[in-house]
Amino acid sequence: MAEHGYDGLTVDAVAARSGVHRTTVYRRWRTVDGLLVDLLAMGADDSWIPAETGTLEGDLVELNREIHASLTIRPSLTTAVIAASFRTPEAANALHGFWKDRYERSAIVIARAIDRGEIPADTDAHRVLLTATAPLFHQLTLLRQDLSEADADRYARDAARAAKAGILRAP
Amino acid sequence: MAEHGYDGLTVDAVAARSGVHRTTVYRRWRTVDGLLVDLLAMGADDSWIPAETGTLEGDLVELNREIHASLTIRPSLTTAVIAASFRTPEAANALHGFWKDRYERSAIVIARAIDRGEIPADTDAHRVLLTATAPLFHQLTLLRQDLSEADADRYARDAARAAKAGILRAP
Repeated sequence: MAEHGYDGLTVDAVAARSGVHRTTVYRRWRTVDGLLVDLLAMGADDSWIPAETGTLEGDLVELNREIHASLTIRPSLTTAVIAASFRTPEAANALHGFWKDRYERSAIVIARAIDRGEIPADTDAHRVLLTATAPLFHQLTLLRQDLSEADADRYARDAARAAKAGILRAP
Repeated sequence: MAEHGYDGLTVDAVAARSGVHRTTVYRRWRTVDGLLVDLLAMGADDSWIPAETGTLEGDLVELNREIHASLTIRPSLTTAVIAASFRTPEAANALHGFWKDRYERSAIVIARAIDRGEIPADTDAHRVLLTATAPLFHQLTLLRQDLSEADADRYARDAARAAKAGILRAP
């Protein structure tokens, strides 16, 4: 799918690439959407946790670098899954569940910064994460304009500095 | 398209809704993608300019309310065009051209704030606009989670406050 898009993701193509018979793929998943749902469910079950660098800025920079890499690598599975989410409700639900889980896990970055006394205790964790990460998705996936890793770092630092300045406190 | 998605956008459906013969639609645009490209090109040619409220915060709040309304109205043409942009290169190019134009026109909001002495002269206009607007697109279109108009206002205010604090200066 990363190489040929959602339209190129067929049971035959998956069977050919993985060296099994098409009926094996078919028996397990019925459709390519079923395969996609399992792929994303696997991602949500994995042991991913955000990097711990010792500072809010460092943690957000690491998070943004991961997102930046996933959106700029060619072929990009993330971009292919986003495209698929606009095609089938199964892919959409699986992707939204995957992201919800990732953002929930990432909230620990803000909790640690509060514990260290880096930012106010009533900082809105989701708003910090969205302020840091949303510009990457918007610029690369929707506006389809360039965004360098240095730009990704900058949005992470902006969010950290805004949180420290008390701008991102819960209403 | 807003009502039935890209799959429901056919030459026959457009002809039926507009009360003309399908050959009229076909002669003018050949395909529905051609129609979509003209629609977005029309949007780029229009006389839209961002609201002028007298403050950076006010201008960004107005901008975010427009975006929020366009993404939450049902049916949403904007969401339908975003979905179409993941289907055909014609729709993708037309949408990216439309947005590029809108973001360029919106930069005047930051230029006015600099002229008023509200924010540093070296404030990065595109970064201010992306910091204010990207969370709306990301949350509503990609994460598909709720985002209220009050939330949209908050992201606009966050960006204005970060710009005033000198956080969004050009590197």
